[in-house]
Amino acid sequence: MALVVQKYGGSSLESADRIKRVAERIVATKKAGNSVVVVCSAMGDTTDELLDLAEQVNPVPPEREMDMLLTAGERISNALVAMAISAQGAEAWSFTGSQAGVVTTSVHGNARIIDVTPSRVTDALEQGYIALVAGFQGVSQDTKDITTLGRGGSDTTAVALAAALDADVCEIYSDVDGVYTADPRIVPNARKLDTVPYEEMLELAASGSKILHLRSVEYARRYGVPISVRSSYSDKPGTTVTGSIEEIPVEQALITGVAHDRSEAKITVTGVPDHAGAAARIFRTVADAEIDIDMVLQNISNTAGRTDITFTLSKANGPKAVGELEKIKNELGFSAVLYDDHVGKVSLVGAGMRSHPGVTASFCEALAKAGVNIEIINTSEIRISVLIRDAQLDDAVRAIHEAFELGGDEEAVVYAGSGR
Amino acid sequence: MALVVQKYGGSSLESADRIKRVAERIVATKKAGNSVVVVCSAMGDTTDELLDLAEQVNPVPPEREMDMLLTAGERISNALVAMAISAQGAEAWSFTGSQAGVVTTSVHGNARIIDVTPSRVTDALEQGYIALVAGFQGVSQDTKDITTLGRGGSDTTAVALAAALDADVCEIYSDVDGVYTADPRIVPNARKLDTVPYEEMLELAASGSKILHLRSVEYARRYGVPISVRSSYSDKPGTTVTGSIEEIPVEQALITGVAHDRSEAKITVTGVPDHAGAAARIFRTVADAEIDIDMVLQNISNTAGRTDITFTLSKANGPKAVGELEKIKNELGFSAVLYDDHVGKVSLVGAGMRSHPGVTASFCEALAKAGVNIEIINTSEIRISVLIRDAQLDDAVRAIHEAFELGGDEEAVVYAGSGR
Repeated sequence: MALVVQKYGGSSLESADRIKRVAERIVATKKAGNSVVVVCSAMGDTTDELLDLAEQVNPVPPEREMDMLLTAGERISNALVAMAISAQGAEAWSFTGSQAGVVTTSVHGNARIIDVTPSRVTDALEQGYIALVAGFQGVSQDTKDITTLGRGGSDTTAVALAAALDADVCEIYSDVDGVYTADPRIVPNARKLDTVPYEEMLELAASGSKILHLRSVEYARRYGVPISVRSSYSDKPGTTVTGSIEEIPVEQALITGVAHDRSEAKITVTGVPDHAGAAARIFRTVADAEIDIDMVLQNISNTAGRTDITFTLSKANGPKAVGELEKIKNELGFSAVLYDDHVGKVSLVGAGMRSHPGVTASFCEALAKAGVNIEIINTSEIRISVLIRDAQLDDAVRAIHEAFELGGDEEAVVYAGSGR
Repeated sequence: MALVVQKYGGSSLESADRIKRVAERIVATKKAGNSVVVVCSAMGDTTDELLDLAEQVNPVPPEREMDMLLTAGERISNALVAMAISAQGAEAWSFTGSQAGVVTTSVHGNARIIDVTPSRVTDALEQGYIALVAGFQGVSQDTKDITTLGRGGSDTTAVALAAALDADVCEIYSDVDGVYTADPRIVPNARKLDTVPYEEMLELAASGSKILHLRSVEYARRYGVPISVRSSYSDKPGTTVTGSIEEIPVEQALITGVAHDRSEAKITVTGVPDHAGAAARIFRTVADAEIDIDMVLQNISNTAGRTDITFTLSKANGPKAVGELEKIKNELGFSAVLYDDHVGKVSLVGAGMRSHPGVTASFCEALAKAGVNIEIINTSEIRISVLIRDAQLDDAVRAIHEAFELGGDEEAVVYAGSGR
């Protein structure tokens, strides 16, 4: 008998019929002799509908109240799943994030989990119940207000509960049946991976793979929680995220996959005076606006002692960053802020890079052969990322996937409605 | 500066526009120098939509989960009202029933308030915020599970908070602008009452008036909370429910109003052996099924030593009661269970009845003149109720209203959409 944590995403819960199918899987897992804890996201469009209502009453709604509003979505889906479980002859209790002991910081809209004290979940399990926990939400340690964990927060709830309960596995169900060597909608012969070490999954998530949210993988790695990525529409085995690349013998280390990201934009600040502190002033200005940046490029100075500074950031933060930088233009004495949102990022990830020095060369050769120009390049020990034109992104993914012979023999299955 | 508790019903909150209008009234009350606590019901159709989803996944959903589901509705409306208040330049914090300290019994679906410990509400008021509290919900003292207070529960939340906070007034806003001498849709010259004592309001609520839920009036009476019944669509003064009939000098005590009720059905058990304990057995059987009964009539025995026992109950419980009684038919040896759901109840309420012995006679004469036959009659010190055919209910209300000269000089205003 194992302790299993299962997480179901919004598309798996978008209708009463889908909720019943999810309940069947949960009950089957319980009847197979396991203790079962389930984390549900809000049903399909609920969050968008609530956001729309909020927008109608206040275009800039207070964040505390936004958290109170949005967390109702998971409360609804969890209660409905509990009812569907009951209709199938098992019994479940649903808990809010607060009731399940998910204690967070007080940053509304993007809180971090500080502690998980799931005594009520444990009690429910000991009494033979299935325990359902509303994902994405917690309660602030300081203010006791309801908080939300930001994008992908339900994954993090599931992993954090699995860690606190010392679960045997954390199963993440969505409309994708595993982690692939590339997006199967771009690369038809992309291959499903059986196992991916934490470090590689972190790099994939940070490089645009939306299978698992970055923070949930960080959490799983820290506490050694094995994550199983599976489809809620099939019984096929998925991908297990577990283990460290340090445990892989050097000669077996491989290239794992290609990730891509269309969500970034590029900002270039031109004619920046090349003195100590100028770059720092630019990045401090962006950081003070609570904006994360990703890739950075500083050109060497020209003969006039001026340089250009380029960085990428989420498109959603683009206009805000430009506005903040324009404010310090005269003070800092740079020429202009250029904004470009027609960029894309393609990344290659694999522990094998550490021991195979030719990977960067092969990567660049493949792009060159496909006629793709590189604008920024950025690497970690097990990843290479480049910024290119967005129109060339699909071609670049295919070229790299082929150059590193990542494909399988059969076509990948892409489920209808797979919108992520 | 006063402490005002305001309660808004679902029809006052059914759209973003209505929410904004409610927010305007709340902000105006605050800007007039008052401390303001607001209790909101769920938006218009939210509860019905959630019930429909529940029905789809489980026709007999577990009550604990039903409470978890339905309470999401008030959470949504309260957060939206807080956002709308913020858009109008004031600041509000919304609280769940649990956060506001509404502690209840653990009877899911029909919990009773045991205690209200609103320290977070008080803190919010002291910091200058408007405090919003989700109506209809609380937290069980024993299990710490989320509970609901049953039909009309948000009125009770508002009155209980007003009592705990020692508020100056509890204003109940809906689409009706006060308590009338009769339903204005039936009696066009029904008159709005300025003040109604608690005892009379209790009798009116128990007799079918839906303006205030019975339990909220009981609570207000016990703690001496003045209730002001007002319309959310106008600024006209409403009706104040306050004071005791004991304070009214006998010579000023009057007949107050006519109430009617279409929600009851009549059950007659015929040929009941007339021995000690037979009636008790019948009423115990109904009580054990958790069914409340209202009026009771036992005929005198016929020559065969048998009698008929008649009682009324909510139509919703009719089929269940019949089923339970059929089970004891052979054991008790009665002839049959007759069910009749074409009955209606009309009641006259007023403290003046205590000192004017002719009221019952005038009441029955008015019905006789209108050709209405009385099936059961039932009285309290300040109320007369009779059961009649449902098709004659409107005629009966008008006849009594006229006989006791309760009407005013002008036509009552009935608001569009007034569906209660």
